[in-house]
Amino acid sequence: MHSYNHHGIHEEMLKDEVRTKSYQNAIYQNKHLFKDKIVLDVGCGTGILSMFAVKAGARHVIGVDMSTIIEKAKEIVEANGMTTKITLLQGKMEEVELPFPKVDIILSEWMGYFLLYESMLDTVLYARDKYLVTGGLIFPDKATIFMAGIEDGEYKDEKIGFWDNVYGFDYTPLKHTALTEPLVDTVEVKACVTDPARVFTIDLYTVISADLAFQAPYVLKVRKPQDFIHALIAWFDIEFTACHKPIHFSTGPHSKYTHWKQTVFYLREVLTVEENETVTGFLMSKPNEKKKRDLDITISYRLETDDPSRQAEGSLDYKMC
Amino acid sequence: MHSYNHHGIHEEMLKDEVRTKSYQNAIYQNKHLFKDKIVLDVGCGTGILSMFAVKAGARHVIGVDMSTIIEKAKEIVEANGMTTKITLLQGKMEEVELPFPKVDIILSEWMGYFLLYESMLDTVLYARDKYLVTGGLIFPDKATIFMAGIEDGEYKDEKIGFWDNVYGFDYTPLKHTALTEPLVDTVEVKACVTDPARVFTIDLYTVISADLAFQAPYVLKVRKPQDFIHALIAWFDIEFTACHKPIHFSTGPHSKYTHWKQTVFYLREVLTVEENETVTGFLMSKPNEKKKRDLDITISYRLETDDPSRQAEGSLDYKMC
Repeated sequence: MHSYNHHGIHEEMLKDEVRTKSYQNAIYQNKHLFKDKIVLDVGCGTGILSMFAVKAGARHVIGVDMSTIIEKAKEIVEANGMTTKITLLQGKMEEVELPFPKVDIILSEWMGYFLLYESMLDTVLYARDKYLVTGGLIFPDKATIFMAGIEDGEYKDEKIGFWDNVYGFDYTPLKHTALTEPLVDTVEVKACVTDPARVFTIDLYTVISADLAFQAPYVLKVRKPQDFIHALIAWFDIEFTACHKPIHFSTGPHSKYTHWKQTVFYLREVLTVEENETVTGFLMSKPNEKKKRDLDITISYRLETDDPSRQAEGSLDYKMC
Repeated sequence: MHSYNHHGIHEEMLKDEVRTKSYQNAIYQNKHLFKDKIVLDVGCGTGILSMFAVKAGARHVIGVDMSTIIEKAKEIVEANGMTTKITLLQGKMEEVELPFPKVDIILSEWMGYFLLYESMLDTVLYARDKYLVTGGLIFPDKATIFMAGIEDGEYKDEKIGFWDNVYGFDYTPLKHTALTEPLVDTVEVKACVTDPARVFTIDLYTVISADLAFQAPYVLKVRKPQDFIHALIAWFDIEFTACHKPIHFSTGPHSKYTHWKQTVFYLREVLTVEENETVTGFLMSKPNEKKKRDLDITISYRLETDDPSRQAEGSLDYKMC
């Protein structure tokens, strides 16, 4: 459970300054791109990005969201005197009728945990294919998944080892769950044992839905003299490449906190590693066949070392649901 | 959003030692009450209370839960060699068929935020009326809601004032929401400006569903020389009075952290108070007519003071949904 609050998710997103200020900068610093343009805000929430676009000179903004938050967004847009500039529509992108046949710019904050979990990317791609004019812009337009290996003995014991003895009982069935469900949590940069590795990049102009079931190789180079790897972590960076001066933010452990935190995949074994050794493998992710909003993730790994006593490899299945 | 984890709620509840150890003590210290008894665990979750009851000598325990967690509970019960002692049933209490016509003890951790929000108390009462033998026991059997007044200027500004200016926009429509939705959060004991006041007590043996729509008077006595009251807070205490040595725990600000935290009701005005003055009023709570799981809460208040310049009174409506 968490701090209970009905619109808590919107509050948390607005208060995530890394997120919101990146969008604000991308829009305000590029008024030449927004001036007199028709803009579509996919999953507009409280309407903050729509209002940024109006301030940047957009001719008209259409905000679409499935949630009842759209009622609050209407009140907010009215409080800011922008009702003639912003059309807010509640419903699915596939079902709503837009007041313009085409839009010049698609604006969206669609990213979920691990970039793709419960993300709205499919909806953005639908909007792109149906509404974006040829040569139109997408904000943001590039997303990259990164990985690293971390030392996490203490917390792993608390999260995984806890289930060995719960008030005197054997709770190992939940240990299995804990090991197969990635954990979304903040990771300290000092826990990182390897360099970060760029694993998978999405170009919003060209990606199609089918590309989101992917398998991508990774190579993690150990940067500590002697250490242990208890988990692999993933995060993502976001880029607005259409900007005059490119704007970028990261949700990695080396960057300022964001509400996306990092995603932690615990290994069942502990890798004992030395500097300049590498951990290689594949990151695979695809929507679950039965429940499209769930993600099936498989991570294979192999420690490349000359020391036969420390050799290790495996393949682990995870599920975000 | 919060630390993402599928069974996270069960982990958080198990790791809430104030909660779980109180149940453990109430059961383990009273083996004379559990020996050879038939026990019903309402909303059994992972089965921890059921297993406590078996360890305390129960003849048989029936655990009922609507959630799919029951599948994990079955695995856990099996891992602990208790499958012959515990029957786990997935479904609504109103619909499942118990293997015994009557039970000697009802065990349940049914409490929600503000005691009653999304609580399972109705289900416990249904089980009591249908299954509990005459003279049977309920663990726990007493719950009391308390209130106090707090100084909370800084946080109120962060939670409420935030909406006045969000990246340059007027978000007062969400300020209204923030003021009418109680906030579940931890309150420091030093923030308390008044004595705690006992407001509403539930006796699990005699209460009926209709009693849960209630209006109760309260009197809060100011205990600081000069201070301000920005919010009223509520919490609850839980008692197991059937125990040989009574067992009790509190979710108040003066007690150790529990996952229930406290519930904060911000006032629209600030009360300027002096020692020995009182704030009096009524706490009213009832299930929302349309959505029975939502709570409509009204708090009236009046500052009793000889200083006419500081007199204040009002009545505020809140909604937990």
